[in-house]
Amino acid sequence: MDLETIKDPGFLQSCSREEMEKLAEDIRHFLIQRLSVTGGHLGPNLGVVELTLILHSLYESPKDKIIWDVGHQAYVHKIVTGRAGQFDQLRKYQGLCGFPKRSESDHDVWETGHSSTSLSAAMGMALARDLKKTDESVVAVIGDGALTGGMALEALNHIGHEQTDLTIILNDNEMSIAPNVGALHSMLGRMRTAGKYQKAKEELEYLIKKIPAFGGRLATTAERVKDSLKYLLVSGMFFEEMGFTYLGPVDGHDYDDLIENINYAKKTKGPMLVHVITKKGKGYAPAENDAKGTWHGLGPYKIESGEVVKKPGPPSYSGVFSNTLRRIARDDQRVVGITAAMPGGTKLDQFAAEFPDRMFDVGIAEQHATTMAGGLATQGMKPVFAVYSTFLQRGYDQLVHDVCRQNLNVIFAIDRAGLVGADGETHQGVFDIAYLRHLPNMKILMPKDENELQHMIFTAVQHDDGPVAVRYPRGNGYGIKMDKELKELTIGKWEVLRDGGELTILTFGTMIPVAMEAAESLESQGVSVRVVNATSAKPLDESLLEELKEEGKPILTLEEAALQGSFGSAVLEYYHDHDSHGMIIERMGIPDRYIEHGSVPELYEEIGLTPARVRDKVLTMVPRKRQRA
Amino acid sequence: MDLETIKDPGFLQSCSREEMEKLAEDIRHFLIQRLSVTGGHLGPNLGVVELTLILHSLYESPKDKIIWDVGHQAYVHKIVTGRAGQFDQLRKYQGLCGFPKRSESDHDVWETGHSSTSLSAAMGMALARDLKKTDESVVAVIGDGALTGGMALEALNHIGHEQTDLTIILNDNEMSIAPNVGALHSMLGRMRTAGKYQKAKEELEYLIKKIPAFGGRLATTAERVKDSLKYLLVSGMFFEEMGFTYLGPVDGHDYDDLIENINYAKKTKGPMLVHVITKKGKGYAPAENDAKGTWHGLGPYKIESGEVVKKPGPPSYSGVFSNTLRRIARDDQRVVGITAAMPGGTKLDQFAAEFPDRMFDVGIAEQHATTMAGGLATQGMKPVFAVYSTFLQRGYDQLVHDVCRQNLNVIFAIDRAGLVGADGETHQGVFDIAYLRHLPNMKILMPKDENELQHMIFTAVQHDDGPVAVRYPRGNGYGIKMDKELKELTIGKWEVLRDGGELTILTFGTMIPVAMEAAESLESQGVSVRVVNATSAKPLDESLLEELKEEGKPILTLEEAALQGSFGSAVLEYYHDHDSHGMIIERMGIPDRYIEHGSVPELYEEIGLTPARVRDKVLTMVPRKRQRA
Repeated sequence: MDLETIKDPGFLQSCSREEMEKLAEDIRHFLIQRLSVTGGHLGPNLGVVELTLILHSLYESPKDKIIWDVGHQAYVHKIVTGRAGQFDQLRKYQGLCGFPKRSESDHDVWETGHSSTSLSAAMGMALARDLKKTDESVVAVIGDGALTGGMALEALNHIGHEQTDLTIILNDNEMSIAPNVGALHSMLGRMRTAGKYQKAKEELEYLIKKIPAFGGRLATTAERVKDSLKYLLVSGMFFEEMGFTYLGPVDGHDYDDLIENINYAKKTKGPMLVHVITKKGKGYAPAENDAKGTWHGLGPYKIESGEVVKKPGPPSYSGVFSNTLRRIARDDQRVVGITAAMPGGTKLDQFAAEFPDRMFDVGIAEQHATTMAGGLATQGMKPVFAVYSTFLQRGYDQLVHDVCRQNLNVIFAIDRAGLVGADGETHQGVFDIAYLRHLPNMKILMPKDENELQHMIFTAVQHDDGPVAVRYPRGNGYGIKMDKELKELTIGKWEVLRDGGELTILTFGTMIPVAMEAAESLESQGVSVRVVNATSAKPLDESLLEELKEEGKPILTLEEAALQGSFGSAVLEYYHDHDSHGMIIERMGIPDRYIEHGSVPELYEEIGLTPARVRDKVLTMVPRKRQRA
Repeated sequence: MDLETIKDPGFLQSCSREEMEKLAEDIRHFLIQRLSVTGGHLGPNLGVVELTLILHSLYESPKDKIIWDVGHQAYVHKIVTGRAGQFDQLRKYQGLCGFPKRSESDHDVWETGHSSTSLSAAMGMALARDLKKTDESVVAVIGDGALTGGMALEALNHIGHEQTDLTIILNDNEMSIAPNVGALHSMLGRMRTAGKYQKAKEELEYLIKKIPAFGGRLATTAERVKDSLKYLLVSGMFFEEMGFTYLGPVDGHDYDDLIENINYAKKTKGPMLVHVITKKGKGYAPAENDAKGTWHGLGPYKIESGEVVKKPGPPSYSGVFSNTLRRIARDDQRVVGITAAMPGGTKLDQFAAEFPDRMFDVGIAEQHATTMAGGLATQGMKPVFAVYSTFLQRGYDQLVHDVCRQNLNVIFAIDRAGLVGADGETHQGVFDIAYLRHLPNMKILMPKDENELQHMIFTAVQHDDGPVAVRYPRGNGYGIKMDKELKELTIGKWEVLRDGGELTILTFGTMIPVAMEAAESLESQGVSVRVVNATSAKPLDESLLEELKEEGKPILTLEEAALQGSFGSAVLEYYHDHDSHGMIIERMGIPDRYIEHGSVPELYEEIGLTPARVRDKVLTMVPRKRQRA
């Protein structure tokens, strides 16, 4: 069928099996075609086609609430809720969001992006329903990887205790972003093979009923043994222990199996867990046979060959970080790598290949990772936690309470700092300076290019007086020449990149080319601007700031970070704390709102972080200064 | 024995049973006596006397690492590591810290205060040991309440997976701070009564061995059944499933039981969990029979009667909050109360008594609480999460990603905002303005007194455009007259408390009396100062700020919050963003370091938040302005 004609999922309730099978085929074809052009999360969506259709045929959305954990598997849901026509603009500026988005559709009842939030949200909605005495169903779809996040476990615990009426669909695919980590995953592995025990279980139950003693004194125990067989043989015991009714394992591509179990869950009161086994990439061979996780989320690809279109380019910041860390670790036995389920994204997989004993993937568990790094540091190790800016938000209290308070030598390699582009507002790394800067003992660095990154990583590892955060952007460096020797930089010493007498731009990282281009343009207009590479947002280079104070010329701070409380605010604080109130200081950065998806240049344009806007801002500042003088 | 003569726990290794029993008695006597004067965490420490002695007799601290989760149960540890002599200054300014403190003793290998961190820290230390190929043991002591925190579950999962060699002592007491919540607690409850199944289990195992079929085709299943009996009968199956060897339940006041199990854990490789049942308050009747949790942590008391010395005083801010919320909830069915294991501290226990169906204690699970509140808000409810400032740090990502990003109507009643006194640096609520202010859509209010608090809570519940945080201090209000009618305030409208022409102090909450006293003193010196009650740190009262700009007089911001990125910085940002660079603005607040324990007035003195220091600061600002004029 023409998917673009679908306006509402209601038609699924009366779909015949044949129609639904044909629809599933059409959807897979659509996704493979469209995503080959736009890129996107192909694998996860191909895996949940049948599951999504069955959910929408059994539940009445949006009255019933369907919540998608992480949300990158919600494309099928978007198609059957009337958004197929927008897929050519998937993850593009002002186009369809790659995650559920309430402003797009009433069927998107909760927005996700980060993992492990769906159970808490579902519980909130279910409690509201019970208080309002309405009768809608609440369903959360969560992957096996997301289940290792602490907040999901907190929610399981609470839901089990309250015996809240809701259904969790555990979408268990053998390949999540990275091989899953932890005991929970082993348990799910055992469940997958539990089918063959079904028969054995029945025989065993029969035998136990025959044991005479069970009729008498041991009756209670016998009851418990009987219960335990259920736990044991399908190994759903973890969830049963938590107070859930466990259903499964269910074949996530078998309509009957899905309908039977999900319908049972829907009709039964109390917390239900339906364990659904799906195959990521189902129906598209390259994505099915994806050992490395390439097809989880990717850019354009060639459908026939399954070849991913790679833009040639300089090495990525993540790659430079990982290479540098490997190089350092060869000589320095103290170095340990840590990731929270992002070995590929952070490129620490390369570190792991060389130093398997010194690399720990803790799963989606940023809280644990942060404090575990602190524990390592107390014993003289040099733990390096590579983590996306947006995900380190999960470790904020551990930064405050464990690492910074005890002034431990933990290195935070903060990847995807600044705007990240297509992933959009849930993933923009724009708050880290603001949430790190007020922490005593923290140092915050950002390099101007990949060469400076390698030195900063080296510097952070050498540093012996507390935590150091080195933040760097998503994407590629400039392809500049890399110094052969790693060198230790002085933390808190900034660099004048371009001298000029009328105004100083204090900036760093991604904004340096913007500032440099603006300065050149201003030069041609006869305005002489200095550009400073402010390598550390904390500590500030006080000696340079004092020189600028002496000079008395205007200062513009420019950063790809939230304007509230980040670097520019630090400069304001410094001058007002040091008796120099007359300074003209203005700030450019990310305004006080969430920035949606789009390419980074488009977003720069939207929020005014471009050379032209910097030039215009400088021109408003310089004449004013002249008028005063 | 004279406990003050103990310098090192080494002597415990050669202690006879009689000597140890006598020592335990002396320690209990010592704690009951000393804490009756100083106050402190009596109950938890009376419960772990035997456990602590046995740990220090079996392990060689500080080579072996003993980590105390939360840490308020470490007094016995402090006594046997040579600090008995400092107990008269327990939790006092520059005296003994109420939690483990590395600067106090080499035996304090990790500092705690917040819960659920010990497993991650222990794992870090154990991994470091394995990498360095040394042979120390690592032990974490964690309570049953702390185990529900997401980061502890993340750590369990990872430790089980890595099969790291460490021992977790699960200190399971039936009474933790509040009745424990959640499925985990039910599970522990089942374990407590599991002893009687021991005999049944043995008989059952015998019977099963006799079933002929088990010798043949069902062998594998039979093995699993046998394993499962262990899980089932002592119900340690949760931990066994997680990859731990489960030992217990152990009587935490029985030396032989403790020695046998902990020794076994010490000598066995891999992750061990020793489940120890202790009695909080053991050996002191009032603390043993403590239904309300009074004896968990308290001020001075009379030993004979068990009467807690209560200072008469005005109602606490927490009490006013809770009363107000009850009052609002009587008319407004949308109001729901949420706490994370702090029903007593937040006084929501009173709300729970009146509205049991509309009150949720989620356990130590601030992440889940924050997002669950978001889920409730999407369905038109008005969730009010009452949480200490320092603990909301655990929900930071959920604030960023779920509540603020979706602009949901969640009310955060932030208790213990500002300095908290005796609990010290792990508990100071000084970062919340800095970590909330950069979040789009967030509003941050603080009342000047308990009367304004009630109106602010009412205002926050009425507000229909996103999250509102109302922060208020630990302790009592001023006993002022309370308005009878609740009224809705205009968010972002400040109040001039005292007019004056030479300088304006912008301040709020606890600092208002400081500013007023300073202003009065300055008045007598002929300096006329305006004091403004800046009721909202976000949004700012822009119209008032514009009036001050017109006036052009100096401004002093004064706050009991971190100077980096909090209210004062917001004022600097405002003026520099609005073309008024010449303003003389200075800031007073909490400096860029962690503030240790002491009484709040002592801490104010230390960091300079006193009327005299404010007066001195104003005097440096006013003449300078005059010179310029």
